[in-house]
Amino acid sequence: MFRARCLLRALRSCSSAPCPRHKPSAKLSVRDALRAQNTSGERVTVQGWIRSVRSQKEVLFLHVNDGSSLESLQIVADTTLNSIVRFCMAVPSEPITVLDFLPLQDSGFVHIHTPIITSNDCEGAGELFQVEPSSKMKVPEENFFNVPAFLTVSGQLHLEVMSGAFTQVFTFGPTFRAENSQSRRHLAEFYMVEAEISFVESLQDLMQVMEGLFKTTTMMVLSNCPEDVELCHKFIAPGQKDRLEHMLKNNFLIMSYTEAVEILKQASQNFTFTPQWGADLHSEHEKYLVKHCGNIPVFVINYPLVLKPFYMRDNEDSPQHTVAAVDLLVPGVGELFGGGLREERFHFLEQQLARSRLTEAYQWYLDLRRFGTVPHGGFGMGFERYLQCILGVDNIKDVIPFPRFTHSCLL
Amino acid sequence: MFRARCLLRALRSCSSAPCPRHKPSAKLSVRDALRAQNTSGERVTVQGWIRSVRSQKEVLFLHVNDGSSLESLQIVADTTLNSIVRFCMAVPSEPITVLDFLPLQDSGFVHIHTPIITSNDCEGAGELFQVEPSSKMKVPEENFFNVPAFLTVSGQLHLEVMSGAFTQVFTFGPTFRAENSQSRRHLAEFYMVEAEISFVESLQDLMQVMEGLFKTTTMMVLSNCPEDVELCHKFIAPGQKDRLEHMLKNNFLIMSYTEAVEILKQASQNFTFTPQWGADLHSEHEKYLVKHCGNIPVFVINYPLVLKPFYMRDNEDSPQHTVAAVDLLVPGVGELFGGGLREERFHFLEQQLARSRLTEAYQWYLDLRRFGTVPHGGFGMGFERYLQCILGVDNIKDVIPFPRFTHSCLL
Repeated sequence: MFRARCLLRALRSCSSAPCPRHKPSAKLSVRDALRAQNTSGERVTVQGWIRSVRSQKEVLFLHVNDGSSLESLQIVADTTLNSIVRFCMAVPSEPITVLDFLPLQDSGFVHIHTPIITSNDCEGAGELFQVEPSSKMKVPEENFFNVPAFLTVSGQLHLEVMSGAFTQVFTFGPTFRAENSQSRRHLAEFYMVEAEISFVESLQDLMQVMEGLFKTTTMMVLSNCPEDVELCHKFIAPGQKDRLEHMLKNNFLIMSYTEAVEILKQASQNFTFTPQWGADLHSEHEKYLVKHCGNIPVFVINYPLVLKPFYMRDNEDSPQHTVAAVDLLVPGVGELFGGGLREERFHFLEQQLARSRLTEAYQWYLDLRRFGTVPHGGFGMGFERYLQCILGVDNIKDVIPFPRFTHSCLL
Repeated sequence: MFRARCLLRALRSCSSAPCPRHKPSAKLSVRDALRAQNTSGERVTVQGWIRSVRSQKEVLFLHVNDGSSLESLQIVADTTLNSIVRFCMAVPSEPITVLDFLPLQDSGFVHIHTPIITSNDCEGAGELFQVEPSSKMKVPEENFFNVPAFLTVSGQLHLEVMSGAFTQVFTFGPTFRAENSQSRRHLAEFYMVEAEISFVESLQDLMQVMEGLFKTTTMMVLSNCPEDVELCHKFIAPGQKDRLEHMLKNNFLIMSYTEAVEILKQASQNFTFTPQWGADLHSEHEKYLVKHCGNIPVFVINYPLVLKPFYMRDNEDSPQHTVAAVDLLVPGVGELFGGGLREERFHFLEQQLARSRLTEAYQWYLDLRRFGTVPHGGFGMGFERYLQCILGVDNIKDVIPFPRFTHSCLL
């Protein structure tokens, strides 16, 4: 694992870059750019971190790396280039590869094993399990790791560390909630696919990856394990095949949280929890919204800041004050994905941590932004809920071999 | 996940089966046997469980499944066949596929996510971490799961459950030890590849899979990530490339525990721990043995029963009384794999549990044998130690992005 310490500063590209061509330039990884031999004049964008700068009389030699290769890309720039925030370079269009999202490994995503035991204790994702050696359980003042340690609720923060070196990273592993829940869609131990992507500047980009992941994975499952899927559809969920095809052939919908609340307010249905701007969406609301959308999965975006954790990017849209967060709601399950843009701006994050009284605990996270960072975002998808969604299995305990939930830990 | 409850009884094949041909018959999975269309007369062996028996006047229809297919293989047998313990069937040799071990998924191994939180508390693999909701840490008499719950030290026992339906299974995930160790080859949280294989009847078969896994994985790493490996070899471990090639080109060696102790006793070297039959092999012993073997990895087999956990298969070789356990020692690291045949015989296991005072805790495990089981075995490989071995990295903390060990849990 190569450390991210040598990062100097970020090169960014965005659609408003002063490229001479009007269509957005294609993106290339450093690895693919290095492989490009010809120069047909096609303009492409490379995003990465400058590892070293060598200044000559008339030109600058910049070495740019994005984690896709050990070798860096050498950029020759004019010395008059005072503030390097973006650049376009000419390489042939030949080697441009389209991300295919799954298996994520093949699309340039680096698989990271984020830790299970962590000292982060207050991400706001529900109650935590604490861990100590069994012999020390009755001596709570002594900690094996010197500090209290917990089972992870998400690999996101650790992925953010790694995305600062590898650009596109993901993890697939167990996560935990110590919630006293007996619902048909909660477990104390469950798996999440989580991805984090540097240089992402809009929820639109993120939603494209999420929709691509859902659709490509599902098509792979359907083509690789048709008998298993058919067995489930036949005996457990008749009609599920048609519902799934309906999801696959339609573009997922997008609505803002504000629009969602308006739709719920105008619903003829009586809800147990009255829909209200600033309040969480409950399971009954999620179900209604998906039905309202004709059983097509729907992204709900731009949630009130107060409903989301400290790391979500501020939309600066007062008086509403929302953040660039996104949830994907799907038929039968409700929330399947959660994600958003991360607050990369130092002072915004500093303020948000102070407001949540988390400044001390997340000093290391703030430090990731201290010497500059890049726009980035990511998401997580609950793996058992995903299986429920595609197989039509009603109870989450039926899609995992050894389910763990309150009052039950068999074997 | 399809349950294993419908298993009726085991069909076994072994090399002493009364096949009309002298060479051992090739093995076929039920899936491959079903795909076979022609009947060239080649004899093959299929191993699995009888899911149903239909008795007609003159013949029996047996439906055999091994987890490789939802469809079962129909066997037509003579009704005079009183005790079904093995059979040979004629299918063409055409579809016989050779196991290639890695990626394990492609060689018929089913990937199982064994649980992280478990109620098993006494497998003898070192001290455990206990888990409880952080709010309940000071109320030790209340348990979230009703029983004390721990972080897994191995997925083996859960894999054994699944190997009773899928024949060949593996897991790759985090495991935990609450040991107060600062050594260069121990972590509190580390990854293991573990495999469990039904119908395995000798350590020889198991060692073949272990050696195949090590060699095939290493060759894949060398061909897929040559630059990363070269970087490590160049700057961290000069000469490692030759040492690795030496391991790959030689057949791994095999010696018994008894032979190993004899070699250590005859060594000119002074050990901190005097080698003695019945005592554990220490790191210094492992190093000496590997060196003695010319730096070729060496399997040490047949350990004293008292040194190994209750589930190891009794060799019935009194007065020594050893079990069919195997460790693989490799240069630079020492123990890399541990495994063995599992005690599948009900009364042997019952006695072993009683002797270890574990009868109550492992009643469920004993029950796996109550209605018959099959010979099986498996192993685990420490993933970080594997990386140390091939990359030549001295300290295990340098091959994992977020190392966890006593007194340290950063981020």
